Amino acid sequence: MTTSRRTPTGAAVFSPAVTDAITTAAIDELVESGYARLAMDRVARRAGVGKSAIYRRWPSKQHMVVDVLALLSIPTGPAPDTGALRGDVRALMQSCFDWLTDPRIRAVLPDLVAESGRNPVLAEAVAHHVTRPRLIWARTALDRARDRGELAADDIDLVLDLLIAPVFWRLTHGRPVDDRYLDRLTDLTTGVAAT
Amino acid sequence: MTTSRRTPTGAAVFSPAVTDAITTAAIDELVESGYARLAMDRVARRAGVGKSAIYRRWPSKQHMVVDVLALLSIPTGPAPDTGALRGDVRALMQSCFDWLTDPRIRAVLPDLVAESGRNPVLAEAVAHHVTRPRLIWARTALDRARDRGELAADDIDLVLDLLIAPVFWRLTHGRPVDDRYLDRLTDLTTGVAAT
Repeated sequence: MTTSRRTPTGAAVFSPAVTDAITTAAIDELVESGYARLAMDRVARRAGVGKSAIYRRWPSKQHMVVDVLALLSIPTGPAPDTGALRGDVRALMQSCFDWLTDPRIRAVLPDLVAESGRNPVLAEAVAHHVTRPRLIWARTALDRARDRGELAADDIDLVLDLLIAPVFWRLTHGRPVDDRYLDRLTDLTTGVAAT
Repeated sequence: MTTSRRTPTGAAVFSPAVTDAITTAAIDELVESGYARLAMDRVARRAGVGKSAIYRRWPSKQHMVVDVLALLSIPTGPAPDTGALRGDVRALMQSCFDWLTDPRIRAVLPDLVAESGRNPVLAEAVAHHVTRPRLIWARTALDRARDRGELAADDIDLVLDLLIAPVFWRLTHGRPVDDRYLDRLTDLTTGVAAT
């Protein structure tokens, strides 16, 4: 039946090119202005579309940003597997550093962390799209270390925090992070793991 | 001369009670709405004054917030001095935890950290009023540990980060911090210090 290829009544048909343009514009606006100041008319202008093209896809700024987050944050590739805790922690730390210094992440993440304190829906979206996938990814390597007897199960949570928190804190306060810092933080993190 | 007590021509005379009311209102608005959404007319309404009373004191929202920050952040009392690194680090960590869980700090700090990435004047004000006084305060205790040979000079910076960054990261992601966590983080922090 040729009619099976007709658009079902009531379903919207969206041009993927327009969706991509809006998504890119939304990320750029998020980077430049932050969530609180992000304005739909600026996103529309930047994407070269009318505001209605945005609102047909997402009923609100929050819905749009929640979808956009998914594009910012998926860890790629398998977790490091050097065969030893120290090598894995150093590699995980490098990966977190590379992610946190990506210009888009660097601009957007502190803002999303702050907004999450006021907006539980956004907090859940940040956890779902940004924090949790990276935690699960890193935990794979730490679970292997635990299975090898190199890390107490109780300390996995603390080690996960140390992979990201000190570097995030330094970068958001405009302080430098170099290889020596990451090496020393790795010593410390794996030192306690061995106690 | 009685004229010496006259107000000098051109100098503004501000009622301290009004200044206090505006300052309190500004902090409350910062806690509720964040820096980006903070509106001067809401601060005025909350303080029970006209907007001109605010603008006579501060030419802009940024000037007002910079002044208000000074009230949020002075560490009180001397730095801990238990005579040993572990005791001092645990006490410093508790003090950072208490500060970060103060409801006003908890609401305002992540927002100021995020805004600092876009606003160098605010970043400098946050460093001057919020970060630096606490760093100097904590460093007093760590310098004593260094003088006792318990801590390498090169590691002081890393230990300062560990006093605050992991707890800040967990709290802003809605994850719990308990005494066991702080104890274990202290073990780790002082473990590397002893290497």
